[in-house]
Amino acid sequence: MNATTNRQWLFKGRPDGALGAEHFEWRTHSIPTPNEGEVLVRVRLISIDPANRAWMNGRTYRDQLAGGEVMEGLALGEVVTSTDASFEAGDLVEGLLGWQDYAAKPAAQLTKRRRDLPLETQLGLLGPTGRTAYHGLIDVARVRAGETIVISGAGGAVGSIAGQIAKISGCRVVGVAGGAAKCAWLTDTLGFDGAVDYKAGELRRALKAQCPHGVDVYFDNTGGEILDACLSLMNPFGRIVCCGNVSQYNVARPSGGPVGVPGLLVTKRIRMEGFLYGDFEHTAAKAERALEHWARESKLIVANDIIDGLENAPTALIGMFEGRNRGKLSVRVTP
Amino acid sequence: MNATTNRQWLFKGRPDGALGAEHFEWRTHSIPTPNEGEVLVRVRLISIDPANRAWMNGRTYRDQLAGGEVMEGLALGEVVTSTDASFEAGDLVEGLLGWQDYAAKPAAQLTKRRRDLPLETQLGLLGPTGRTAYHGLIDVARVRAGETIVISGAGGAVGSIAGQIAKISGCRVVGVAGGAAKCAWLTDTLGFDGAVDYKAGELRRALKAQCPHGVDVYFDNTGGEILDACLSLMNPFGRIVCCGNVSQYNVARPSGGPVGVPGLLVTKRIRMEGFLYGDFEHTAAKAERALEHWARESKLIVANDIIDGLENAPTALIGMFEGRNRGKLSVRVTP
Repeated sequence: MNATTNRQWLFKGRPDGALGAEHFEWRTHSIPTPNEGEVLVRVRLISIDPANRAWMNGRTYRDQLAGGEVMEGLALGEVVTSTDASFEAGDLVEGLLGWQDYAAKPAAQLTKRRRDLPLETQLGLLGPTGRTAYHGLIDVARVRAGETIVISGAGGAVGSIAGQIAKISGCRVVGVAGGAAKCAWLTDTLGFDGAVDYKAGELRRALKAQCPHGVDVYFDNTGGEILDACLSLMNPFGRIVCCGNVSQYNVARPSGGPVGVPGLLVTKRIRMEGFLYGDFEHTAAKAERALEHWARESKLIVANDIIDGLENAPTALIGMFEGRNRGKLSVRVTP
Repeated sequence: MNATTNRQWLFKGRPDGALGAEHFEWRTHSIPTPNEGEVLVRVRLISIDPANRAWMNGRTYRDQLAGGEVMEGLALGEVVTSTDASFEAGDLVEGLLGWQDYAAKPAAQLTKRRRDLPLETQLGLLGPTGRTAYHGLIDVARVRAGETIVISGAGGAVGSIAGQIAKISGCRVVGVAGGAAKCAWLTDTLGFDGAVDYKAGELRRALKAQCPHGVDVYFDNTGGEILDACLSLMNPFGRIVCCGNVSQYNVARPSGGPVGVPGLLVTKRIRMEGFLYGDFEHTAAKAERALEHWARESKLIVANDIIDGLENAPTALIGMFEGRNRGKLSVRVTP
């Protein structure tokens, strides 16, 4: 890259169906000049998340992405200059920096991060990914040893960590992922007790075979037919942690809702609860201590799938919806 | 009735669609002789509940009703003779006595009830009805003063009490019921802040007009389109209490699931939770004290819709699905 220009990916507008290269536009712009109270940040590592695609479809927990603007994305970056006393040049910060080389952001929208760990550890294990997995299982599902847990999107960033936390918690863990290779990785490398390939058909039957005593907790990253299948296998007083609805983000026509809702929720007394990791600031420190400890003791393997080069960001996000990543996907802008 | 015979309604088999008189058969049988450990009970007041219809469709929290057997139903009755030391003639008991004059039941399946209150108070306010309303709002939804609560099936047994408990708790309460007369009853007699007639069309728009600040708690007795409409109006961190799915019990083809699940649960961090009153034995005494106190202070009006005569039990249950009852429906067998 050239230190006097700011390369950017613009988002062109809401896709009607699958995301493609045509929904992004590359441009070279000038480096922004921070206003009073703003911080100029050089982007280093961009997080590629299923939520990026959901933001395109409409209002979620934030406004819909507007066409013609820099593609939004969470990232880590380094402070270049700051007009705010709380940041200085060289600080590592996290924020919605977008798909570009440089971002000027109000100081209040940035969070300082530690410099003693690799960037990918800050973004994955100790960032939104690890915290989402931890809070979902520990604070929302409140898993107990001996329970059977099913996790969809198990080969992805959150799912692969959530499954290992469930194992550490003494649970029987079954992952749902696409393809035999990813399923083998879940059981052979990450230590899941079982894995089900949702692309192989007979989903409910395969899940039932892996969960002979039913399902106590379903950690749902996908919605769709996997949610339907799990609902029918839930045990009384089971919990469904609603973390994502990935199966519906990249399609023109979302499928119908789960037919077991609300009937099975009543008869089986199931709790189904949505959450975002940012709602758990009160247990964030506990989560980070636990995650770092487990990783240091090698009880938790964090798979990082890092793609080099800002120019590859659209390909990375498009590929995520084709199931190409394994673990935490990110794009490295500046080494 | 004749004291030497046992009149009974048999359930003939699963209806394919709406319940009708053809699904029941009247017969006169002999009074059963209790076996060792059993209690002979004379049935006095039978509870008519939406769940009776759900039991016909398949396994719920209990086995499906079998065709050719006495129609099942919760009831209050008086002990005639007992072979078990814990009961004696004249005791008032509650249990699944069925639609008949006399039942012989194992002592363990009966619960002794107080004799100092009217039967309908024991069955409604202090029985399953009142306790379902109380536990759903207080223990599951955990309502707080100032919140907006929507209740479907608001003219029914549980809904009419739940709405009044929400008012006592300092909430703004909007009931959904069928027909202008029931809606007027909710606001004028029971003190609801607003009511929406789901038969009048434009359901979502009407609900939105009654809930200008969104919905914090939805007490769901019906599922179906009312659930869909409420999901779209829920505030962040809202709770949906899944108490029943009445809109789907009496139809040949249940409608699809709610399309807002799981997407809206995630983005709005909604908790959706099914429950049965029997799971709250640990707070049962507290619930009964509160319910009795509120009724005595006239803060809680309990509407009892009592139909005389065992011969009218099928008509009562069929009429419930046509919206004919107001408040707690029951059939008096013996005055």
